[in-house]
Amino acid sequence: MIRVAVIGCGYWGPKLLRNFFSIESCRVVALADLDPQKLSSISPRYPGVDLCTDPSEVFKRKDVDAVAIATPISTHYHLALEALEHGKHVLVEKPMTSKADEGKHLVEVAHNKGLTLMVDHTFLYTSAVKKIKEMINNNELGDIYYFDSVRVNLGLFQHDVNVIWDLAPHDFSIMCYLVEEEPVSVQAVGACHIKYSDPPLENMAYVTINFDSGLIAHFHVNWLTPVKVRKILIGGSKKMLIYDDIQPDEKVKVYDKGVCVKSQEESYKILLQYRTGDAYVPMISQYEPLNLECRHFLECIETGKRPLTDGESGIQLVKLLEAADLSLKNEGRKIKYH
Amino acid sequence: MIRVAVIGCGYWGPKLLRNFFSIESCRVVALADLDPQKLSSISPRYPGVDLCTDPSEVFKRKDVDAVAIATPISTHYHLALEALEHGKHVLVEKPMTSKADEGKHLVEVAHNKGLTLMVDHTFLYTSAVKKIKEMINNNELGDIYYFDSVRVNLGLFQHDVNVIWDLAPHDFSIMCYLVEEEPVSVQAVGACHIKYSDPPLENMAYVTINFDSGLIAHFHVNWLTPVKVRKILIGGSKKMLIYDDIQPDEKVKVYDKGVCVKSQEESYKILLQYRTGDAYVPMISQYEPLNLECRHFLECIETGKRPLTDGESGIQLVKLLEAADLSLKNEGRKIKYH
Amino acid sequence: MIRVAVIGCGYWGPKLLRNFFSIESCRVVALADLDPQKLSSISPRYPGVDLCTDPSEVFKRKDVDAVAIATPISTHYHLALEALEHGKHVLVEKPMTSKADEGKHLVEVAHNKGLTLMVDHTFLYTSAVKKIKEMINNNELGDIYYFDSVRVNLGLFQHDVNVIWDLAPHDFSIMCYLVEEEPVSVQAVGACHIKYSDPPLENMAYVTINFDSGLIAHFHVNWLTPVKVRKILIGGSKKMLIYDDIQPDEKVKVYDKGVCVKSQEESYKILLQYRTGDAYVPMISQYEPLNLECRHFLECIETGKRPLTDGESGIQLVKLLEAADLSLKNEGRKIKYH
Amino acid sequence: MIRVAVIGCGYWGPKLLRNFFSIESCRVVALADLDPQKLSSISPRYPGVDLCTDPSEVFKRKDVDAVAIATPISTHYHLALEALEHGKHVLVEKPMTSKADEGKHLVEVAHNKGLTLMVDHTFLYTSAVKKIKEMINNNELGDIYYFDSVRVNLGLFQHDVNVIWDLAPHDFSIMCYLVEEEPVSVQAVGACHIKYSDPPLENMAYVTINFDSGLIAHFHVNWLTPVKVRKILIGGSKKMLIYDDIQPDEKVKVYDKGVCVKSQEESYKILLQYRTGDAYVPMISQYEPLNLECRHFLECIETGKRPLTDGESGIQLVKLLEAADLSLKNEGRKIKYH
Repeated sequence: MIRVAVIGCGYWGPKLLRNFFSIESCRVVALADLDPQKLSSISPRYPGVDLCTDPSEVFKRKDVDAVAIATPISTHYHLALEALEHGKHVLVEKPMTSKADEGKHLVEVAHNKGLTLMVDHTFLYTSAVKKIKEMINNNELGDIYYFDSVRVNLGLFQHDVNVIWDLAPHDFSIMCYLVEEEPVSVQAVGACHIKYSDPPLENMAYVTINFDSGLIAHFHVNWLTPVKVRKILIGGSKKMLIYDDIQPDEKVKVYDKGVCVKSQEESYKILLQYRTGDAYVPMISQYEPLNLECRHFLECIETGKRPLTDGESGIQLVKLLEAADLSLKNEGRKIKYH
Repeated sequence: MIRVAVIGCGYWGPKLLRNFFSIESCRVVALADLDPQKLSSISPRYPGVDLCTDPSEVFKRKDVDAVAIATPISTHYHLALEALEHGKHVLVEKPMTSKADEGKHLVEVAHNKGLTLMVDHTFLYTSAVKKIKEMINNNELGDIYYFDSVRVNLGLFQHDVNVIWDLAPHDFSIMCYLVEEEPVSVQAVGACHIKYSDPPLENMAYVTINFDSGLIAHFHVNWLTPVKVRKILIGGSKKMLIYDDIQPDEKVKVYDKGVCVKSQEESYKILLQYRTGDAYVPMISQYEPLNLECRHFLECIETGKRPLTDGESGIQLVKLLEAADLSLKNEGRKIKYH
Repeated sequence: MIRVAVIGCGYWGPKLLRNFFSIESCRVVALADLDPQKLSSISPRYPGVDLCTDPSEVFKRKDVDAVAIATPISTHYHLALEALEHGKHVLVEKPMTSKADEGKHLVEVAHNKGLTLMVDHTFLYTSAVKKIKEMINNNELGDIYYFDSVRVNLGLFQHDVNVIWDLAPHDFSIMCYLVEEEPVSVQAVGACHIKYSDPPLENMAYVTINFDSGLIAHFHVNWLTPVKVRKILIGGSKKMLIYDDIQPDEKVKVYDKGVCVKSQEESYKILLQYRTGDAYVPMISQYEPLNLECRHFLECIETGKRPLTDGESGIQLVKLLEAADLSLKNEGRKIKYH
Repeated sequence: MIRVAVIGCGYWGPKLLRNFFSIESCRVVALADLDPQKLSSISPRYPGVDLCTDPSEVFKRKDVDAVAIATPISTHYHLALEALEHGKHVLVEKPMTSKADEGKHLVEVAHNKGLTLMVDHTFLYTSAVKKIKEMINNNELGDIYYFDSVRVNLGLFQHDVNVIWDLAPHDFSIMCYLVEEEPVSVQAVGACHIKYSDPPLENMAYVTINFDSGLIAHFHVNWLTPVKVRKILIGGSKKMLIYDDIQPDEKVKVYDKGVCVKSQEESYKILLQYRTGDAYVPMISQYEPLNLECRHFLECIETGKRPLTDGESGIQLVKLLEAADLSLKNEGRKIKYH
């Protein structure tokens, strides 16, 4: 029976709490947050969970095997490090850290201590993304030409990070998982229209990630649009698909459409042929991805197996975010990813 | 009675022909195309129109007052120049020329000869764009924060120009018309996945245009997507709107949504307030924009008034296209617009 | 502090429980269900609530002021009657009873004992329906011509009632609330394609309700459609609206469209004029209607005021359902409503 | 070379004219309409076609082999009869006649004279309907449970027929073609909200057609709705489909969804199992159905083969319309179809 503690009682922490609480193979023993009011308002629903305003105390407890950290980004590194040093397995909210170097350090420590370090890239546990991954693995799409993502809405302006750090981690993690090709460079442009923080934070941005294969990935993130869009378009040489996460039922739609080059021997000319065939909507099973993720974390602890969203994938994401920030500050200049 | 000739019988020429033919205040006297088959297949529907495989002959005719040129881009400059030199008023397909300098020359010649030179930026004659312009003029949107355009589909791969030159002129012209602010710089990234021409032409691209006011304009053009999208999102400080040209009825939707900054005196803190009110769908009258445009051309000839889409607007568009091309070749580097 | 008990732990009971539990002005003291397993699976989240497998015991408790009954329809009458006889205020799931006469008896008993009797017509507490009611009250729609409702999906086949009793109560209650005109007759046709019960239950049906004013109301209910639709179209002499409950954001859309008759004096002819103006999407606030409803029930108990969804409205609904059933059995014959 | 004349220059006649004019294997020799202005406005586009204000003159011409009649419904019978009597093959607009008996007479006359008599049920020539027919023939849908059609919009109020005669012929013809089962009875309810004619004509109606197999067909037709809907839902025991004619691309969507009955031997109980699988959108080729129909008419004349939409199908449609009218006048009573 793995004993879990949840650190952070903001937006995401209670969701982690609810899921771990509902899983029979683990027990939630403690919940920490700096704000005692948040703790007391949530605690009645979770009898038997100790409340605590100091995370360090939780890390020191002998009866805690693993911690799930859902605090502001800037605190991830120190909290995760402290937890690892006290021998706790760690599930940390995305992005894993504010700097890639911090992430690398966490990975090292976890490795040296033989602990599970997992990052909460939730979307990789959705059945929609799993289905797309399966199709790509079966080469149904052919060569991937582009990955075009739009994640926009009238969203909460964050006070500590810009819109890229807030929204793009979802799409970066999906793309890295699906594409499995090392990015080559990152470009980003953005704008800050509402000056409410110092330094001002971009409320909208466009990010391009380039690859050697010719694949181009592009991301539109925006806190200031009138409608909510969560749409990913993936174009392949064989098929193309749309993943529309807003749709309640038909999230993924696959199109047997495309173009191919035919060389015409007689004429030494090149001919383009368009294909347009059926489309289909694969059945996507309905479950809560976070529940699957929590179970996967527990399973990795028990068996020692490498998490799907391990520390390395967390580092990759932070490196992309850092490169995007650097490009933003340099007028959209191409920043090498390494 | 203005006597008109149409040059070019490809995709757009017949549309110009049909419209001029239906307008009672002008008469179509000649139609030219290099391909006699194209001429003969279309001519039965237009009795009384002379056919001709050499545009120069048309320009020399005394009974032609104005010509509408709908030929490949690379021929625009020479044909328009020749027509102007023969004293003809000119309506030329967009983009006006392959190079901005050529456009400037045409404007000079037309000016010196007192002739009307108009560019076929058709979208500016749609009632949807007119309605949006009216709203912006009335300051209903407030300060314009962004202009985000997506124009993608499984489209015809052009053999002479890349996807930016093919699709972006529509959106560039709409943006220039609506925004009325001088662009500062242009950035573009793209990819060529289908190698069918030499040099290879980009089949998808993202273009960013920057402005001094903080306005950011962004364009996604793509010949290789499974669904057709023609959507423009305009965000303002007061309201935001979506112009979805695919919708048969509700093309423009205006949202009374936004965010505003309130300074809280007592706390010296800044507070963001979200607004979310009604949305509305203004009634858009239905007519063929090209018909309105043809009538406008005739009216400008008669009255000498400056066309809405005059040569200057044509030059601006070509300058943006040139800058986008230059940025594409320089890894997305910011290219100054001047 | 009103002390509430919830009877029934199926689909709806837990929702009532959760809402009453979260309201500070009342206290949930007991939860009853015939199945002890259902009770024990839900109880950990509701500490301090007594569990009970016999509703009669709950009704006898002195520390229970009000009960919310969410059991199968056939049991509503007896349970509600017993509760009223023990002096409890009653909120009963819709439809209130299996027969209109039973409903009338409940209303009498409640009246004689001075108790609140309320029916759980939840949709009347949604902000969308409230907004539409407001518009109708303000005569924004003009005379109501028709009410057309479609409520279909691949739904759970019920074992005790046909699709009309299962799905139409939502729409009947919305219609009765909005229209406020006494129905004149009811017609229904339906079909039973899956024979799984004896007697067979219709899995799809069309119901028409006629009114003296010329208003026609029509309902399509269906357990066997591939997509979920919850759409109500209301046509008025001034405006028309669509209420699409599936839409996350834009549930209500109002169209300034219509047709009006102009008599042409000179020609003694009649002329129809079409109007087509703007459409708008009123802002609908987001809250849980059931919470509002529970609070309304408590308020009615405290103040003695008549519930919005009182026993009379419950009877009206059952009378419509009975008439629809009778028409179904008589080949769609018009059944007088009285 | 078949020589064709078109009778009627209203909404549909010019479409027939344009199509026959474009087909090389026939020649349009004459066009008739009572209104000389209509003739003269359309004639310039069709050089070589004789104009005529008296259809009888056209029927008498020796150089006319076939006529296409697109005049008001009440004139169909007399015009078609006269044409047949003069030995002309006839394509007549739907509904074929105002009364079924008239239709029967036309069929007799055509048969006796060995002439082709075809009715313009255009939808049967669309690729969407053809694709659905193919699926039904292959038993992909299984037993057909229901056919539910909605054809509504803010439409032109007709002055001679009610909304059923105006809109339902499309859906009745599609249903008869797809289902191939003899209807048993018809029920209709409707309302007339705008009194502009004498007798008043229903502007909205709901029609139900019953079949022995348990299949139920239902039709909603309405001239007074704010949005245009053309949607047919077909539910089968194996699969279900939606045919949405408004969609530009994805008109037909097939769902592998349903429910089936399993008898459980041990428990003597019946178990319902829900299936929910992939959906798919078959590729539908794009062409103008009227063109295909005109070619089919010419082919039937040449080869003597029976038209897909022959006189018998025309009679069936009129019988359904007559039954619907009779039911309307009798409060929705079930009218036997025979």
